[in-house]
Amino acid sequence: MYIPTYQDMLDAHARIAPHIVRTPVMTSAYLNELTGAELFFKCENFQTPGAFKVRGATNAVFGLDDEQAKAGVATHSSGNHASCLSYAAMLRSIPCNVVMPKTAPQAKKETVRRYGGKITECEPSTSSREETFARVQAETGGDFVHPYNDPRVIAGQGTCSKEFMEQTDGLDMMVAPIGGGGMISGTCLTLSTLAPEVQIIAAEPEQADDAYRSFKAGHIIADDAPKTIADGLLVPLKDRTWHFVSNHVTDIQTASDAEIIDAMKLTWKHLRIVMEASCAVPLAIILKNRDFFAGKRVGVIVTGGNVDLDTLPWIK
Amino acid sequence: MYIPTYQDMLDAHARIAPHIVRTPVMTSAYLNELTGAELFFKCENFQTPGAFKVRGATNAVFGLDDEQAKAGVATHSSGNHASCLSYAAMLRSIPCNVVMPKTAPQAKKETVRRYGGKITECEPSTSSREETFARVQAETGGDFVHPYNDPRVIAGQGTCSKEFMEQTDGLDMMVAPIGGGGMISGTCLTLSTLAPEVQIIAAEPEQADDAYRSFKAGHIIADDAPKTIADGLLVPLKDRTWHFVSNHVTDIQTASDAEIIDAMKLTWKHLRIVMEASCAVPLAIILKNRDFFAGKRVGVIVTGGNVDLDTLPWIK
Repeated sequence: MYIPTYQDMLDAHARIAPHIVRTPVMTSAYLNELTGAELFFKCENFQTPGAFKVRGATNAVFGLDDEQAKAGVATHSSGNHASCLSYAAMLRSIPCNVVMPKTAPQAKKETVRRYGGKITECEPSTSSREETFARVQAETGGDFVHPYNDPRVIAGQGTCSKEFMEQTDGLDMMVAPIGGGGMISGTCLTLSTLAPEVQIIAAEPEQADDAYRSFKAGHIIADDAPKTIADGLLVPLKDRTWHFVSNHVTDIQTASDAEIIDAMKLTWKHLRIVMEASCAVPLAIILKNRDFFAGKRVGVIVTGGNVDLDTLPWIK
Repeated sequence: MYIPTYQDMLDAHARIAPHIVRTPVMTSAYLNELTGAELFFKCENFQTPGAFKVRGATNAVFGLDDEQAKAGVATHSSGNHASCLSYAAMLRSIPCNVVMPKTAPQAKKETVRRYGGKITECEPSTSSREETFARVQAETGGDFVHPYNDPRVIAGQGTCSKEFMEQTDGLDMMVAPIGGGGMISGTCLTLSTLAPEVQIIAAEPEQADDAYRSFKAGHIIADDAPKTIADGLLVPLKDRTWHFVSNHVTDIQTASDAEIIDAMKLTWKHLRIVMEASCAVPLAIILKNRDFFAGKRVGVIVTGGNVDLDTLPWIK
């Protein structure tokens, strides 16, 4: 199993910098007062396709040699990875094939199509997805870019923390949400070399706390179809992301859906940004574990901003 | 009647720069495609108290001499001017007295109090407001800072366009919402000297179109209690703002409440920022009058981000 290196991350940043947004870091005097910490928010929701996943996707797409590139890329995803990979493929004018469950939200499908991605629908089951994906890949020859367990993707996500450290004057802790572990792994990859003094805290929904339980148990525990408002964080860890989580993460803390929704609304109100429920898990744990974070300089990665504005979780 | 000068605006910028946010300019490939124009959004919603009005308020507060400053400032407002003036006064540690109608939203009152402003309530009528304000001013000796018809306020708002021109590589048009005309007047003040080639377009809700009708008639027409979703734009022009509007504005265009709500939602979705309905009037007129704006480089001033997140206008 190839584990991406710090140099891979540096190469990734040089490769993708012309194609991504160097997103701003925002602060809120009010949220600092509320938490007792000094919070810095890296706004990956301001990436053009609305999520940090454009980093890993762009690294994979622009790292292909010309021969491979002709056949394009392929993936399965019902979320931000699908639109970000389509977006990156559009930038390089190569094909992108995406297998999505029939039941995926219409808006997500429209975004993939807007960026030129070709969708093949499957049933909403693991077996149908794997079968359909195998067929699509065989037919198209597209290079498989896994949403998070791919070394190119992890190296790409790691570029976020590199920028974050350049944009701030030192941090004590870095907090990011954890689902499959792509962003947290990239964060570990970068900080373990660049700033090993920074504690890395993963934030997870209580209702999908498989990473938390894996971390405590010392081996991967995969959940069966968890349900939480933080719908970007449902997937389990895989071998590469487990490598980083088990070796470099300081702690995993969890928050309930109600706490996540409160933190989401607080951020919308005081930072005045639109971001997904998944991005609110870090602030939720910071509010919940005040003593742990108070007095510290804490970086928070705001992972994405693709929200269905018609159904906000605090409006019944 | 003193008309503020370009030098007043430059002095204002030097005075307030340490206290305000140099707000970022954002773009959206999607909104450019949709409108056929190249749009630049200056995000004044990211000011700490959430609105451009902090510019004029801070200029007034920090321009007071020490003797005047002891008695502080006073104003009447039920909106962003009240919280921005309180915020500026808090930065200088001087008193701020605000007369607000009993009926003003609780959230607005809480913001004023959070920034140390002292609220005196009045009945929601002009006579009660004027009477109450006269009494408060007599008792406190606070310097009256009008929400928009004050030369210090107009000079302060003008600093936004100065930054905007520095942050972009030339613009063909500048579009801002118009209520009392403070921001538009500041824009005229700055651009008529700095970049007289830039057309200045004011955007107004159809349901509070007194500035539009004044502009066509050649004299101020004040509406009696208009109603629109763009509740930051209800107040009429006054003599100083009329001076700028009548002399420097290229055109005033209007949009319906439905068009404003559509533009607001589009901005939230594609720029991923939280902004008030009033700020969406510019995009609404750009979408409505496509031929007028297509092919042009258009600056849009996003005026504020203090939104009641519990009652979004597109969610019934």
